[in-house]
Amino acid sequence: MKDNIIITISREFGSGGRDIGKKVSEALGIPFYDKAIVDLAAKESGLDAEFIEKGEQKITSSMLFSIATTNYGIGDYYTESSNFLVDKIFISESKAIKEFAGNGSCVIVGRCADYILKNDFQCFNAFIYADFDFRVRRVIEAYNLSVKDAEKQVKMRDKQRAKHYEHYTGIEWGNVNNYHLSIDSMKFGLDSAADVIRRAAELL
Amino acid sequence: MKDNIIITISREFGSGGRDIGKKVSEALGIPFYDKAIVDLAAKESGLDAEFIEKGEQKITSSMLFSIATTNYGIGDYYTESSNFLVDKIFISESKAIKEFAGNGSCVIVGRCADYILKNDFQCFNAFIYADFDFRVRRVIEAYNLSVKDAEKQVKMRDKQRAKHYEHYTGIEWGNVNNYHLSIDSMKFGLDSAADVIRRAAELL
Repeated sequence: MKDNIIITISREFGSGGRDIGKKVSEALGIPFYDKAIVDLAAKESGLDAEFIEKGEQKITSSMLFSIATTNYGIGDYYTESSNFLVDKIFISESKAIKEFAGNGSCVIVGRCADYILKNDFQCFNAFIYADFDFRVRRVIEAYNLSVKDAEKQVKMRDKQRAKHYEHYTGIEWGNVNNYHLSIDSMKFGLDSAADVIRRAAELL
Repeated sequence: MKDNIIITISREFGSGGRDIGKKVSEALGIPFYDKAIVDLAAKESGLDAEFIEKGEQKITSSMLFSIATTNYGIGDYYTESSNFLVDKIFISESKAIKEFAGNGSCVIVGRCADYILKNDFQCFNAFIYADFDFRVRRVIEAYNLSVKDAEKQVKMRDKQRAKHYEHYTGIEWGNVNNYHLSIDSMKFGLDSAADVIRRAAELL
């Protein structure tokens, strides 16, 4: 394995991607950044950490419209609206992600880290996905939801993730060509999926 | 690893998927079926093996049109045209693939094997892809072509594979959800990509 390996994990909602990322970091003995990104972004931006967590992926149709009709840039074009705040969260998290990646090997889940780091770091980008029903079952168990509500959550969160990713990166979320390895967590189970990613990381 | 493991490998042209499949079969000590499928299909159909090899992925626009305007079925609806022959090849290869899979663990490359086997076998379906320029460089080297001709080949062969797959399966070629593991052969190199697939197979 290289001395420095930055593993980014993108994942469908309910696929267990976050748990898999944690297992990979433990197996390789490298940091796993999740809440730490929110905390550092909060520190840098002056925004509340809880507010950041809630707002991370809130990109609305009206926001997309305003982006499409203005020059997309950093802050100046926006009034202090929710759109501006979502951008502010994205920018402060991007800074935090770059800072952590600069510190050496790590696993980062979500937050467009693959895109944010692509010009400055040689990342290993993995994508975790699974059958819809499998994910719904996991969401029912994790959040104690009804089948109907869990199905709604899975659909909505995937849609949010795709919109958020595509908005900030201009590329398609979940397209195989954006990742170096994609793995079906239902077929392998979380432990084995993590093991395959660890093995792949060791071979780089 | 399970006693019986059928690994299917789909791949972009020039990605090295065939070589990777061969390496996986050697590492696991299980058969690799490629030319054997053509030979068995020739035996079953009475068609010439060389004719089968050449015709395997020849699906033309006119064929797609004729399919769209007739009931798609086995032979009876067609005259002895090239369309009929492409179907005949597909059907005889499908029989050969099922026969080989029925014999036990193996690696099968291409030929819609993932789709052909999905109702009768628990396969492990892998997809190999790579950056366009990387594949062009490999094709230049393998076939001693000019850059222009290699680029043309890569584009054309991918298009053929996608059309052929989508025609016979009704599902999208290269869509991550159709496979259990997708891997970028440029990022990992052929040996390591094969090693990741072997490791994944052992964990099933």
